[in-house]
Amino acid sequence: MGNIILGVGNAARLFHSDTGEGKGTEDLISIVDPRAHVVSAFDFAVTRGDGIFEATTVWKGQPVSLENHLRRLSHSARLMDLPQPDIEAFAQAVHTLIEQYDGSEAGPLLRLLISRGLDDATGIGRQDGGLPSIWMFIDAMGSLHETDPISMISLTRGYPSDIAGRAPWLLNGAKTLSYAVNQAIHRECDRRKVTDAVLTTEDGYVLECPNSSIVAQYGTHLVTPDPSIGILHGTTQRELFAYGRQEGGSFEYAKLPFERLLEADRLYMTHGGWVIPVGELDGRRYTVDPSSIESINAAIHAGRTHDEALGIGPKAE
Amino acid sequence: MGNIILGVGNAARLFHSDTGEGKGTEDLISIVDPRAHVVSAFDFAVTRGDGIFEATTVWKGQPVSLENHLRRLSHSARLMDLPQPDIEAFAQAVHTLIEQYDGSEAGPLLRLLISRGLDDATGIGRQDGGLPSIWMFIDAMGSLHETDPISMISLTRGYPSDIAGRAPWLLNGAKTLSYAVNQAIHRECDRRKVTDAVLTTEDGYVLECPNSSIVAQYGTHLVTPDPSIGILHGTTQRELFAYGRQEGGSFEYAKLPFERLLEADRLYMTHGGWVIPVGELDGRRYTVDPSSIESINAAIHAGRTHDEALGIGPKAE
Repeated sequence: MGNIILGVGNAARLFHSDTGEGKGTEDLISIVDPRAHVVSAFDFAVTRGDGIFEATTVWKGQPVSLENHLRRLSHSARLMDLPQPDIEAFAQAVHTLIEQYDGSEAGPLLRLLISRGLDDATGIGRQDGGLPSIWMFIDAMGSLHETDPISMISLTRGYPSDIAGRAPWLLNGAKTLSYAVNQAIHRECDRRKVTDAVLTTEDGYVLECPNSSIVAQYGTHLVTPDPSIGILHGTTQRELFAYGRQEGGSFEYAKLPFERLLEADRLYMTHGGWVIPVGELDGRRYTVDPSSIESINAAIHAGRTHDEALGIGPKAE
Repeated sequence: MGNIILGVGNAARLFHSDTGEGKGTEDLISIVDPRAHVVSAFDFAVTRGDGIFEATTVWKGQPVSLENHLRRLSHSARLMDLPQPDIEAFAQAVHTLIEQYDGSEAGPLLRLLISRGLDDATGIGRQDGGLPSIWMFIDAMGSLHETDPISMISLTRGYPSDIAGRAPWLLNGAKTLSYAVNQAIHRECDRRKVTDAVLTTEDGYVLECPNSSIVAQYGTHLVTPDPSIGILHGTTQRELFAYGRQEGGSFEYAKLPFERLLEADRLYMTHGGWVIPVGELDGRRYTVDPSSIESINAAIHAGRTHDEALGIGPKAE
């Protein structure tokens, strides 16, 4: 028990592997001292950032959008040629982790980290590798719940808008552990004294933020970029779309020119179970209604949008 | 002693940090059991692939191109807003590691892995973070010395050729731990039954290979892409340029259209202290002279090109 809970997953039980191993009575996850070193320097996570992850808020014991996060984990695994995670086993492991948490923070952050396992280009990996490595933690000091209006800038991601279909080896749309560029974008934001960035294509379309989705509101109509452009399908964005529909509005996945973002009535950055209002983007200012933001987040955290969000997605999906 | 040697570096001694700590009498590096877990799941290496690395062959006790690798480590640190490594201290730590190696392999692989340290968006990182993490290993089972002619394909890297100057937050030219895309490119090569890939820009210029440089030979003239296009400055490529000059040839860094690569007399992929002949690229076949390849690698490993390689670079550098 504590306010930081670390677990090491049992790959033979958490993945649909072809090894024939596992499916025994071993635990899905071992809870360990969060200060313990549990990762090998020969692990693909360390040598190559070669893995996938998910993160969300655990609000009063409930992991927000857990099913959509685990579906996205599956999707990332497919794009990365990793074995398929066993969604039910992962959900069970997450709940085992949550049971250990007794911190006072109502909304600690949950992270699921998965690597390809030990690097098979190393001696240690050649001897012992094969199964993915899994670490999970709940961290009351790593939460994400600032809802003050943020200022943003746009930055190019360097790609044209048709790259995802033409070059799947670039992994656009997979949530990989290789986030050095995402981190560098946040350092660039610090230098420019803004909170976050909207990434765009070289031909002027909206993508996503380094660790968030972007949603524009026109009247009661919500719009976000279609994931087929090579971005993540937002989990909290789906909760927001469900909220909008419950309130009588509509929503849309679109190939969204950046100028249309500047014409929005309101703008939201969504991630990890939180909808955050954007006050400014590239100098353009947006209306922010703090009580509306509070209502949206309260509805998402109370689970009011949960079931509906599971059925929301672009038509092509 | 053994054929896999793992060390954990002392950041206070290996980096020019402003903390005022360190510079004491502690060891630069602690040698540990290679099977030990030495990395926290809350380390930036694991959570974000947020770090830098270098790799080279240690030939009969001599790390090939060590100074150029450590200079490149400095360059990567600058692009990544990391503190500057103390080059002399790193070189000393590498030699401490090498002294422990007593495997029978003449050319084991050395890897230097550096992360930003504990992730300060986690509770563990907030309590203990601040200094980079450093791991180093020598691995006799992780060597790279196949010199049979390889077949290659070209694949787009998705970027235009002018992106590095316009968008430094994309980290082009830094050797980061975020290599998931590089790994995916190698899986794509496996699917297409080739050994490796030459990456190109969207406007048709040559970049580099996922973990190697590419060098074209026309008569006795060697040409490689200028690093200013947003690629690594090859260490073994510099050794090859030095070799070429010693043999009476010339060399050039250029903005190299992909078609010119197909017109080369010979083509080489260079990495980690080895020059590897390319037999085929996109179906075009190249002459390979195995005895020349053997002479080049022997000269590099014997240190014959070492001093001269230190002075080789594009004019603008």
